[in-house]
Amino acid sequence: MAKEEEKGECGGWKEKGHENGVCTADASAKPITGDENPQPPGWFAEYSPLWPGQAHFLKIERVLFEGKSQYQHMIVLESTAYGKVFVLDGALQLTEKDECAYQEMITHLPLCSIPNPQKVLLIGGGDGGILREISRHSSVVHIDICEMDMMLIDVYREFFPEVAIGYDDPRVRLHIMDGSEFLKSAQVGPEHEIFGSPFFETVAKALREGGVMCIQAESLWFPSLNLPKLIHTFRNIFKGSVSYAWTPVPAYPSGVIGFLLCSTEGPHVDFTRPANPLDHHDAGSSFGVAKEPPKFYNAEMHSASFCLPSFARDCV
Amino acid sequence: MAKEEEKGECGGWKEKGHENGVCTADASAKPITGDENPQPPGWFAEYSPLWPGQAHFLKIERVLFEGKSQYQHMIVLESTAYGKVFVLDGALQLTEKDECAYQEMITHLPLCSIPNPQKVLLIGGGDGGILREISRHSSVVHIDICEMDMMLIDVYREFFPEVAIGYDDPRVRLHIMDGSEFLKSAQVGPEHEIFGSPFFETVAKALREGGVMCIQAESLWFPSLNLPKLIHTFRNIFKGSVSYAWTPVPAYPSGVIGFLLCSTEGPHVDFTRPANPLDHHDAGSSFGVAKEPPKFYNAEMHSASFCLPSFARDCV
Repeated sequence: MAKEEEKGECGGWKEKGHENGVCTADASAKPITGDENPQPPGWFAEYSPLWPGQAHFLKIERVLFEGKSQYQHMIVLESTAYGKVFVLDGALQLTEKDECAYQEMITHLPLCSIPNPQKVLLIGGGDGGILREISRHSSVVHIDICEMDMMLIDVYREFFPEVAIGYDDPRVRLHIMDGSEFLKSAQVGPEHEIFGSPFFETVAKALREGGVMCIQAESLWFPSLNLPKLIHTFRNIFKGSVSYAWTPVPAYPSGVIGFLLCSTEGPHVDFTRPANPLDHHDAGSSFGVAKEPPKFYNAEMHSASFCLPSFARDCV
Repeated sequence: MAKEEEKGECGGWKEKGHENGVCTADASAKPITGDENPQPPGWFAEYSPLWPGQAHFLKIERVLFEGKSQYQHMIVLESTAYGKVFVLDGALQLTEKDECAYQEMITHLPLCSIPNPQKVLLIGGGDGGILREISRHSSVVHIDICEMDMMLIDVYREFFPEVAIGYDDPRVRLHIMDGSEFLKSAQVGPEHEIFGSPFFETVAKALREGGVMCIQAESLWFPSLNLPKLIHTFRNIFKGSVSYAWTPVPAYPSGVIGFLLCSTEGPHVDFTRPANPLDHHDAGSSFGVAKEPPKFYNAEMHSASFCLPSFARDCV
């Protein structure tokens, strides 16, 4: 580098002089102490155990609801920046501002990856937002949802009607029970021995050939994400395609969330190219219970969500 | 929806009964009061004026440096989650953990969009990270950087040597001066009258035909982002292509940051398809001063970064 200081003006700082700076970069610098997880009044603070040492703070206007079911503790907050916020056992679940990103991507990534999805099982997702998104698919004839906690559904119905509207689809059948129990009781041909199997093996066995599963996965920024191991493990279980995708969700820790998509043996599934683009066949809004077209998902975002930064791509 | 509660178990909450919940969703619910911008000890808190009501908190292990130049206040922190962090006038500028995303994308999005970039002007970017990335391009023969604050450069050199290494490229010429002044003093043919023009008109006039500019733009999640207006304004100034891209940067407010890319009249530039992919011609690592290949940027991420969620895409 050639400096051309004669062309410009130099700051007050003289190189290596440190006249204006108080340099504390020496061994005697004391570590800072403070609250491990501060919770300032008027703010909701979320600390993710998957990436310690950071937190996301939301300013709270008022508490709309607080209650406890036999399973979990729920709070509905009115926030300044994200609209209404649902907090489950202290962890942020959903906000009005950005729920579209999570709900649309976790639904349409799998359902747009196969030509003609007909039967869908949703385990968890009691808020109803994924149901709302499944509802946009005219090929779907039957939607089962397993949710343990009826109170959670009622709280969402009361405070997030645009999310819980998914329950209004007549194809939806709600099972207030554990998803594993439901799978074990489901009709899966006698050749499939699923009792006693780990959860994801049960899921794989319950799927048809070329069927697909999508689950939430860790953010690509989390130090704990081990993508090669994750993909290897699920490829062994599902035997078909396994792909990792991600999408921005600003209220979640690190600002993005990951998804893992798996298909079983059978017709090859290329998750990265929508075989069944929502943009076209249903025009994204003309079918189902949602009152508005998708806000986030489109075919370009679908394919883009599988593109990984080199630090993640090169280790897969 | 058909409920099949006979198949499952019902939570303790009775629908509409609220026995277990304390519902405060009535007009008498008092707004919550608290500190406007709490700063708990041991944590660095960043409040973005562009999206009030939220903040990102980083746990701090120690303060490595604090100083003030004639222009601005600087702090270097050792954080738990992001490694070393540089804070300028209270705003987080860069962290060791995620600087790759910002530096690589803001550099390679423009430089990989044209076939043979030769002369580059960097205004700001005194940390040296963008210089490090420009350095990977073997076609570049000359790199000017205008940075007002020499002290900032020295602090980066001392605490972030892997970032400031960009200054070691012999093609770099550092001008300690304002970028506008530099542009006005630069040789731009007599037909170009730039004195007195607004800044971006000066930039557009200084560029060759089919030349490109990239600047940081607002996050797609910010309520203030007006993409149609932004694109219209810059299209009027630059007369060529104008595109918006975004990339995840977890330490920045909302977890993503935007970029605006503009080309002048002349050879058409399609920013979304790298005409000059870094992956191939320089193998991403064999040229320049960087000690490691790019961690984040690749040709797939390049194109993916221009894909927008429907709420942003449909308004452009």
